[in-house]
Amino acid sequence: MVRRITWIVVCAAVLGYVGAQTEPSPQLQATAQALFQPLPELMLDPDRPFSDELVELGKMLYYDPRLSASGFISCNSCHNLATYGVDNLPTSLGHRWAVGPRNAPTVLNAALHSAQFWDGRAADVEEQAQGPILNPIEMAMPSADFTMERIVSMPGYVEAFRAAFPGAADPMTYVNMADAIAAFERTLTTPDRFDDYLRGDADALTSEELAGLQVFVNYGCAGCHGGAALGGTVFARFGVVEAYWEATRPFVTIDSPTMPMDVGRFAVTQDPADLYVFKSPSLRNITRTYPYFHDGSIWNLRDATQIMARVQLGREISEADLDSLMAFYGALEGEIPAHALQLPVLPASSTTTPRPSHR
Amino acid sequence: MVRRITWIVVCAAVLGYVGAQTEPSPQLQATAQALFQPLPELMLDPDRPFSDELVELGKMLYYDPRLSASGFISCNSCHNLATYGVDNLPTSLGHRWAVGPRNAPTVLNAALHSAQFWDGRAADVEEQAQGPILNPIEMAMPSADFTMERIVSMPGYVEAFRAAFPGAADPMTYVNMADAIAAFERTLTTPDRFDDYLRGDADALTSEELAGLQVFVNYGCAGCHGGAALGGTVFARFGVVEAYWEATRPFVTIDSPTMPMDVGRFAVTQDPADLYVFKSPSLRNITRTYPYFHDGSIWNLRDATQIMARVQLGREISEADLDSLMAFYGALEGEIPAHALQLPVLPASSTTTPRPSHR
Repeated sequence: MVRRITWIVVCAAVLGYVGAQTEPSPQLQATAQALFQPLPELMLDPDRPFSDELVELGKMLYYDPRLSASGFISCNSCHNLATYGVDNLPTSLGHRWAVGPRNAPTVLNAALHSAQFWDGRAADVEEQAQGPILNPIEMAMPSADFTMERIVSMPGYVEAFRAAFPGAADPMTYVNMADAIAAFERTLTTPDRFDDYLRGDADALTSEELAGLQVFVNYGCAGCHGGAALGGTVFARFGVVEAYWEATRPFVTIDSPTMPMDVGRFAVTQDPADLYVFKSPSLRNITRTYPYFHDGSIWNLRDATQIMARVQLGREISEADLDSLMAFYGALEGEIPAHALQLPVLPASSTTTPRPSHR
Repeated sequence: MVRRITWIVVCAAVLGYVGAQTEPSPQLQATAQALFQPLPELMLDPDRPFSDELVELGKMLYYDPRLSASGFISCNSCHNLATYGVDNLPTSLGHRWAVGPRNAPTVLNAALHSAQFWDGRAADVEEQAQGPILNPIEMAMPSADFTMERIVSMPGYVEAFRAAFPGAADPMTYVNMADAIAAFERTLTTPDRFDDYLRGDADALTSEELAGLQVFVNYGCAGCHGGAALGGTVFARFGVVEAYWEATRPFVTIDSPTMPMDVGRFAVTQDPADLYVFKSPSLRNITRTYPYFHDGSIWNLRDATQIMARVQLGREISEADLDSLMAFYGALEGEIPAHALQLPVLPASSTTTPRPSHR
C-alpha cells in the first residue's frame, strides 16, 4: 500500500508537473519596469542620418558576399538572419576556412549595446561594421580602397549610394558603406510579449514565465542583463567567484575547438583590471543564439545558466528555478522584422569589377 | 573640309549609335514561337505531389546551413537567390574551402532541363538535390542517415515534414528531404518580357532586342539554346570546330583556377562519343550568371558568345551582331519570385541535434 501510494505520488509529480507558477503581481511588474525597458521600434542615433534609402543600401551590402575577398562570405554568413542573427557555430568560419577565436554575437538588437564586439573595441555598430570586412580571418578584403573599388564598379551600387547619401560630394566611401550597413542594423529589433508586459499588459506573460522572471530578479541576473536588451551594457569579469575555464570544461561535451584562455577586454585596454572581462551578451532571443559564451563552448542554455550562477554568483540554481528561467527565456524570443528577411536582389557586377579570390 | 566632314561622321556614328534595330515582324515572332516557349508559372512533374507545405519545407531546407557538416554551407551558398541562383564564382567553394571542379549552374528555371548537372548525371531536380549534401567537397555530410538524424532532432522540421507528406508512415526520409527541396526549386521560374513576346505581344521587346533575336536565330544558336529555358535540353560536344581549351585561354584574364581538361559526360557514360560533351546551359538570366562555361573561366558575356561561335560554329560574330545579341540577352533577365526571396526563420536546433563539425 505504501509502495502504491509512493508510486501514485511520483507519477502525479512527473505527469502533473508544469513548473512553478507565479500569478501576475503589480510589484513584480514594477520591479521589471525598473530593471528593463521595452525594445524601441528602431535603434537610432539622433546624431546620424537615417532614411529608407540608407537602410535599403545597408541591407544589400549586408547580404552581399562580394564584400569578402573570396566573394563567398557576407555579413549574413556569420550573422544569419534566418537563424536569429547568428551562425550557431562555436566560433565562426572565415576566409580559407579560418576558425575565428570568438563566438559571433547576434546582430539583432545589437545597436542597443553600449559598445560592440565581446571586448567592446568598437564604440557602435557603425564602427563595428568596418572591422570584419578587412579582418584576414573573416572576409579578408585586402584594403578599404579595394573594397570600394569593387563596389564603385557596380552601377547599381553607385545609384544606391547616391540615393542614400544625397548631397554628398563623394558618397562612395568605406565609412559610408559601414554607416549604411549599420543603419540597416539599427532596424533589427525583435519585440516580443515581454515588451507588452513591460508596457503594462500584466497578462502578456504566462504564470511559468512570470515565475522565471521572479527567479531572474531574485538571483540578481539583471545586474549584468538589464536594460532593453537584457545585456550589452555592462563589462564584467567572466569568472568572479570561480574560474570560468574550469567551471565550463565539464559541460563541454563536443569536439569543440580548443581555444587558448581568452584575455578579453585586456587586449583592448592593457589594463590588468580588464583581464577576462567581457561585455555581457544580450539575452534577447537567447533560446536561439546557441552555443553560448564568448567561445561558444556551451550548447545547452540550462548548463550555461548554471555556469553563470556558479562562476559569477557562487550559487547553485535549483532544478525548479532552472525550469522557471527556461520558461522566462522563451518569452524573450521575439520576431525578426519582415523587411530584414526579404532578400534583396543584388546589383550586377560589371566587366571592371575586381574578381573574387579564394586564396 | 574633308577632315571636318569625316569628324562629323565619326562623331555622329559614335554619339548616335544605338545598335542595330529591327522592327517587329510577324515572321520573326512566328520563328521565335517555333523555337522557344514561354516559361510556365510552375515547373511541375505531374507524377509528383506538390503543395504549399512541401514548397515551404523545401525552402527552409534550401536555406539551412545545417544540411552541411560544418553548419556553414547551405544550398543557397552556391545557388544564391540574391544573385540569380548562382555564386558568381568560377567554381564553387565547399567544405574546408575545397574548390569544386565546375561552375555552379543557376537553380532558376533548372527544373525545365532534361537532366541535371553539367554532365546530366541526375535525371531531375529531385535526384540532383540528393547529391551536394553528401559530396565531400561540397556540403560534406557523412551520410544520408546522419543528415536525417540532424533534421529529425528538430521539432520544427518534424512538424514541417508531417505537413508536407500527409499520410506518409515515415515522412522523415532523405529522399523526401530532397523531394521537398526540389518542389521549392520547381517554383523558381523567372518570366520576363521575352515571355510576353512569345505569348503574342509584338511590342514587348525593343527594336535592339528584336535585332538581337534575329541574330540569335540567324546564327542557329537556338539549336542548343532553344525551348522554354533557352538551353538545358541538349548535350553537345564543347568544341566542335575548334578545341574549347585553346579557344578560351586568350580570354582568361584572371587568376582563375587551372582546372584539368574536363572530360564532360564521358565520366558518366564511358562512351567515347561523350568526351567533352556537356549539357547546354540555359540562357535565361545569362547577364547575371557570370562567369561562364562549365569551368567558369570566362567573365565577359561578349567574349563567351564569340568563343561559342568560334568553337561550335566556326564563325566570327561581327561587333555589331554582338551588340545586338547583348541587347537580346538583356531581355532574358527575368524576375526572381518574391516568395523565394523571403528568408524563412529556420527551426531551432535541440539539445540532441548533432553538432556541426568544420573538420
